[in-house]
Amino acid sequence: MSERELPDGTTERLDRDAPAPLHAQVSEQIRTRIVSGDWPPHYRLRSEPELAADLGISRGTLRRALATLIRDGLLVQVRGRGTFVTSTAIEPSIAQKLNTLSEDFARQGVSYTTEVLSQRVIAAPPPLATLLDLDPGQSVLHLERLRSTTTGPVAWLVNYVRTDLAPGLDRADLADRSLFGLLENDHGLKITTGRRTFSATAATGRVADALGVPEGFPLLYLEQITYLYDGRAIEYSDVWIHSERMRVTSLLSRR
Amino acid sequence: MSERELPDGTTERLDRDAPAPLHAQVSEQIRTRIVSGDWPPHYRLRSEPELAADLGISRGTLRRALATLIRDGLLVQVRGRGTFVTSTAIEPSIAQKLNTLSEDFARQGVSYTTEVLSQRVIAAPPPLATLLDLDPGQSVLHLERLRSTTTGPVAWLVNYVRTDLAPGLDRADLADRSLFGLLENDHGLKITTGRRTFSATAATGRVADALGVPEGFPLLYLEQITYLYDGRAIEYSDVWIHSERMRVTSLLSRR
Repeated sequence: MSERELPDGTTERLDRDAPAPLHAQVSEQIRTRIVSGDWPPHYRLRSEPELAADLGISRGTLRRALATLIRDGLLVQVRGRGTFVTSTAIEPSIAQKLNTLSEDFARQGVSYTTEVLSQRVIAAPPPLATLLDLDPGQSVLHLERLRSTTTGPVAWLVNYVRTDLAPGLDRADLADRSLFGLLENDHGLKITTGRRTFSATAATGRVADALGVPEGFPLLYLEQITYLYDGRAIEYSDVWIHSERMRVTSLLSRR
Repeated sequence: MSERELPDGTTERLDRDAPAPLHAQVSEQIRTRIVSGDWPPHYRLRSEPELAADLGISRGTLRRALATLIRDGLLVQVRGRGTFVTSTAIEPSIAQKLNTLSEDFARQGVSYTTEVLSQRVIAAPPPLATLLDLDPGQSVLHLERLRSTTTGPVAWLVNYVRTDLAPGLDRADLADRSLFGLLENDHGLKITTGRRTFSATAATGRVADALGVPEGFPLLYLEQITYLYDGRAIEYSDVWIHSERMRVTSLLSRR
């Protein structure tokens, strides 16, 4: 039985003879700190060597303990920046990189499901035709999807995609494949840049129903236009995000 | 009198003998397109050479016309990306760069005022002390500010700053100076990275009053921790944004 003082002065006990392996004891101690609020959301943990030394354990044991908490969504690790307590289970960096939600979920090991509610070719309404450099009335794929994690529905996604650039997309499997993945890998399109705008909006109608929130509930609202390497717009989207379940995070440099 | 067909097939008239200078006529035509919705929010204008050729004017005249609309907040120009129709008057890129709102406003030529509602040294409450690597009860500067543009209040900013690293900050002029500017220029601190999290929240109490919105109104909510070059946290902030007046925009690259 070893007794160590943690940086905040409290004492933690690790029992090397207990049936629970050491890494599991450590992850439980850290979990308690997070759940109790001792380590609040956004808190950056001390470096691995410091933390391992404080706890009197090897870095390997510490890493296993941290891996458990990362898998459970309580911590997030950012290369070169450190390990942070998450504010909610999921924190995609979609304001900082042109990733899709599904790519961010996959990288963070978040399991999710996608329900396709609409996938059909429609005549582009005028403002959308302008945004996508189409003639009014030209065909676009209209896609409505609901993305859920184990915590429940997190995002309602509506996309309008230029079918002239990606024929057959109306028959593609968009429940299991990512839209960007299909465009890039199956259609050979080179997506290079995107413009995303974030605001807050009140939930209404179908969006409120799908996300399981009352009318008026504040949602994070993302509008996006995506461009190909040659400057053509390929896709416009509206995304409504249940931000109690998913927050958008950016790690930024000053210079 | 020249008559030119624009890309969308409509005809525009420019009167070279009219008292209004040509660039003013062009900016008025473009303004009409934006206000009418012909060019919707997020629309990217054709390149300057193309647009100048379409309108039968010089690039210099076009640039003067665009400058008027950029100054008026109807267009935004992004180096290397093009000129876009804004979705609202202000679109800071604070999810993409570690800029402050005041820096973004200054770069976009947006006039704003800052009202300092509280600027005093307090004992850091426990979760905040942890975030800023302080002992509970150690002093921090508590700052509450309301930032407004000509459209009205746009953001309620609450900052907690480590006064041990920036002594005298409680007496600094934070109505006219930016917080980062003071920390960097007057206190010689090297701000290098920050972590910003965006979500949506319902307006309540003082924040609702200050922003002039009803209780429950959806606001964009930003939490931030800022770090110095040596990894020490210097500042934590909560910012509530009236996102009908100001949206957060990111221009992103895929690779």
